[in-house]
Amino acid sequence: MEPIKPTTRTQVSRHRERGAYDRALINSVLDEALICHAGFVVDQQPIVIPTIHARIGDRLYMHGSVGSRMLKTLRTGASACVTVTLVDGLVLARSAFHHSMNYRSVVIFGTAKETVDLEEKRAAFEAIVEHVCAGRSKEVRAPDENETKATLVMWMPIIEASAKVRAGPPIDAERDYALPCWAGVVPLKIQPQPPIADDRLAAGTPVPDNVTNYTRENARR
Amino acid sequence: MEPIKPTTRTQVSRHRERGAYDRALINSVLDEALICHAGFVVDQQPIVIPTIHARIGDRLYMHGSVGSRMLKTLRTGASACVTVTLVDGLVLARSAFHHSMNYRSVVIFGTAKETVDLEEKRAAFEAIVEHVCAGRSKEVRAPDENETKATLVMWMPIIEASAKVRAGPPIDAERDYALPCWAGVVPLKIQPQPPIADDRLAAGTPVPDNVTNYTRENARR
Repeated sequence: MEPIKPTTRTQVSRHRERGAYDRALINSVLDEALICHAGFVVDQQPIVIPTIHARIGDRLYMHGSVGSRMLKTLRTGASACVTVTLVDGLVLARSAFHHSMNYRSVVIFGTAKETVDLEEKRAAFEAIVEHVCAGRSKEVRAPDENETKATLVMWMPIIEASAKVRAGPPIDAERDYALPCWAGVVPLKIQPQPPIADDRLAAGTPVPDNVTNYTRENARR
Repeated sequence: MEPIKPTTRTQVSRHRERGAYDRALINSVLDEALICHAGFVVDQQPIVIPTIHARIGDRLYMHGSVGSRMLKTLRTGASACVTVTLVDGLVLARSAFHHSMNYRSVVIFGTAKETVDLEEKRAAFEAIVEHVCAGRSKEVRAPDENETKATLVMWMPIIEASAKVRAGPPIDAERDYALPCWAGVVPLKIQPQPPIADDRLAAGTPVPDNVTNYTRENARR
């Protein structure tokens, strides 16, 4: 895999100390985040669309209907920006000004390429299902020929990429530490709720472990 | 408040049945979502940045350092797209193809204006703190003159806006309902974890109710 080097586009400018170009960190954020927000331009208008992604090595895959405006635009070789954000907690300071969020985000710039090769397309489908729920691709019916044809798969290289991370307690102005208000962090987590079985589920079908014990942290591997 | 009417930009094209232009729905999604993803264009490159927002009436406020590239770009009157996404659950179908997500998203197109008026700027600061944690703006030190000057506040009209919602069980192909695999929905929720008090908190400072009982659903009103 190519190393990640900051470019003029990915050099974090605000809060440089929060910028990171470590591939393991970038990968872990991409893998934990369920969705990304893909940005592209149509007639000079920026458009930001939430979509599911999945990573294989240093490629970020996105998919959707062949009718999707986003994918049709990316297919033309349009510049894109894919951003992924994990909100880890509220940072509650003693002053309004020093309130913040703990987060891990990744921004990827580049252009996407279509996955035409059938084997790679199948691997991408599998990676996307596994990204959502590890182990599931082996439990469900794989895409047939028509479904495969109706689905466009595009990938972006995870090369021009950067992460930005804030962690830890609030940093208040020295004069504010004496204020009597509570300050600290409220960690936030995505918590799965009890699964709701489909009405037409065959009686006695067990809930699989990867659903019962679902968490984003171990969503993959 | 101006009514919301679909324009060529906000008319949902894929899955039209999921499109919605109801102001109450749009407002509720904007209010529940902790952050948005703001898209803008610099030298033909789309850039997507996560940021906190807050709504007052039909205005969406964003704020940050006067040095922020995003805000400096918006200040020039650049076209913007602000997208907010709530992931409500995994939709696990019997076929890979019919997997989906339950979500509520809002897309707003337009250009942002700077909030220069001091009273409006203070109201925006308050709305942003309240957006993160209801009741908190009264408990913390308000921004002083320097902090106010160092912060740029921009707002976008919530007029050219649309929501997109998917809810409910998986919709499988008729032939797949007989498959023996589990299918259904795994609802996802943002769950606050026990608050972590700042190390320098004065002994005996109580954890306020709005922190103890924090949820995004009742984050506002």
